[in-house]
Amino acid sequence: MAVYTDVSPEELEAFLGTYDIGRLRAFKGIAEGVENSNFLLQTEAGSFILTLYEKRVNPADLPFFIGLMEHLASRGIDCPQPVKNRAGSALGTLAGRPAAIATFLIGTSVRRPTVANCAQLGEALAGLHKAGADFPLARPNALSVQGWRPLFDTAGARTDTVSTGLHALIADELGTLEANWPTDLPAGVIHADLFPDNVFFLDDKLSGLIDFYFACNDLLAYDVAICLNAWCFEVDGAYNQTKGRALLAGYSAARPLGPNEIAALPLLCRGAALRFLLTRLVDWLNVPPGALVRPHDPLPYLKRLRFHRTVKSAGDYGIDS
Amino acid sequence: MAVYTDVSPEELEAFLGTYDIGRLRAFKGIAEGVENSNFLLQTEAGSFILTLYEKRVNPADLPFFIGLMEHLASRGIDCPQPVKNRAGSALGTLAGRPAAIATFLIGTSVRRPTVANCAQLGEALAGLHKAGADFPLARPNALSVQGWRPLFDTAGARTDTVSTGLHALIADELGTLEANWPTDLPAGVIHADLFPDNVFFLDDKLSGLIDFYFACNDLLAYDVAICLNAWCFEVDGAYNQTKGRALLAGYSAARPLGPNEIAALPLLCRGAALRFLLTRLVDWLNVPPGALVRPHDPLPYLKRLRFHRTVKSAGDYGIDS
Repeated sequence: MAVYTDVSPEELEAFLGTYDIGRLRAFKGIAEGVENSNFLLQTEAGSFILTLYEKRVNPADLPFFIGLMEHLASRGIDCPQPVKNRAGSALGTLAGRPAAIATFLIGTSVRRPTVANCAQLGEALAGLHKAGADFPLARPNALSVQGWRPLFDTAGARTDTVSTGLHALIADELGTLEANWPTDLPAGVIHADLFPDNVFFLDDKLSGLIDFYFACNDLLAYDVAICLNAWCFEVDGAYNQTKGRALLAGYSAARPLGPNEIAALPLLCRGAALRFLLTRLVDWLNVPPGALVRPHDPLPYLKRLRFHRTVKSAGDYGIDS
Repeated sequence: MAVYTDVSPEELEAFLGTYDIGRLRAFKGIAEGVENSNFLLQTEAGSFILTLYEKRVNPADLPFFIGLMEHLASRGIDCPQPVKNRAGSALGTLAGRPAAIATFLIGTSVRRPTVANCAQLGEALAGLHKAGADFPLARPNALSVQGWRPLFDTAGARTDTVSTGLHALIADELGTLEANWPTDLPAGVIHADLFPDNVFFLDDKLSGLIDFYFACNDLLAYDVAICLNAWCFEVDGAYNQTKGRALLAGYSAARPLGPNEIAALPLLCRGAALRFLLTRLVDWLNVPPGALVRPHDPLPYLKRLRFHRTVKSAGDYGIDS
């Protein structure tokens, strides 16, 4: 849940006065997103989401995020469409923070994705990669392979307090990934955080993608690996190859994966698992007293990593090389 | 903010299947109410609020609360209208908790009420009291005078950790109020928690009242005293007589206060201030480690109580006796 900043009615009214979306009819803080404060906004023009960017978001990145949503929406991707104010800008200031209004996307996220959900997710991910190909801005991925060792150093000796032997396993894994991470695969704009929370379905049809605040430029197949980790494991930690096969087939139907991307998939999946294991580990070890947000448990990503280390080839994920 | 319970899409779908409000289009946890979990629900039939009643609400009280909202709405009071399921009940079970769906009320709450807001609030409060007169159910007020000493005992010796001398002041005040609390004033259904958060305005016109989960049977003028405390003090703790006069005039225009109610107003205001001082004090002293909700500061209600102890007659609040 996320409402970190209190917005006074006076400030809100002044902010809305810079837009052409009519008068306010309702305003409620909503529990969506973990990095920013989000509000449901109803005006005479309809429903919108107001986002206040909190300190974990670098203001210098906002033109990339907002420009990307505009770019994708203009190419038919179902995602929030930033609303411009009268000065022509989609970014303003509210309660001392950068703030933006975007259209309200209908649909609800799924908790336990079905095979059909995974197939549609794969197709939507490929659509996003294709639509992002001509986006003119770029943002390096701070959470790709070169960002993992600094995270590991932050966790340091406390790593083993979460799980015995975890420090040695990560050290070994990190060495392997740093030495073998591919550099010659197709790259472009990736979502980088396309978990089930960030995908809406309406009557079993994918209705949109949200939360582009980790989007960046990186290997496209790495985004596929992130989604295999996020969508195709069961609650008990087992990989569901039927779901994986559906996701990969959905993706490939819209953007065929090349042989080198397929061959790299096991390594990319290990990297994706390690990336979420590390960020969750650091968050887990650094919960401030009195925190209002509970961090995600890192251990499910340890289970995933262990699985990926046993994988022989991409065929184990459900795609033929 | 309040979303204490996680609702899975599967549970939600099964629950909505018992209603005739069409298929789900959006579902988001919202930061409204502090006792229950609230969600914005959009279906083919429009916008609704779904409430899950958490453990601070006694399930035996729910027929009173929900019946009252139905009763008031049927008499033209702008408040959430409970929606009945196909079995004809406005109360169901979701995620193991009692749950209800109500219509979505447009408008937004004000942070710093204006004189005009106070006048409208007074009028709406009198309207609520009149509309509630023939409501057939009854619920005693557990937070009226007989409930204050147990709260004070709970705080006990820790009271002075919040403010030096507070224990002696409350002991003195409690003795006075217990000895002099009126019993012969007009009674009926009161809201008992009509703070600015619980009142919506749309284009400067009062559009509705929400959160009836403290409603009960008590002295009507005590509800007026609660509102004077909640609406007519400035941030610096000073009573704003212009606002108080507007609130009392608005109320009296719809339901004239009797001479005995007016005469009792200073005592009732002291009681209302003590009631919120005590509940906030107890909440403040009992914040569990890792709590996700921050309690209200009790001290503004100490300031109010100190002011009321200096009041000579109801004329000081802005009403002629």
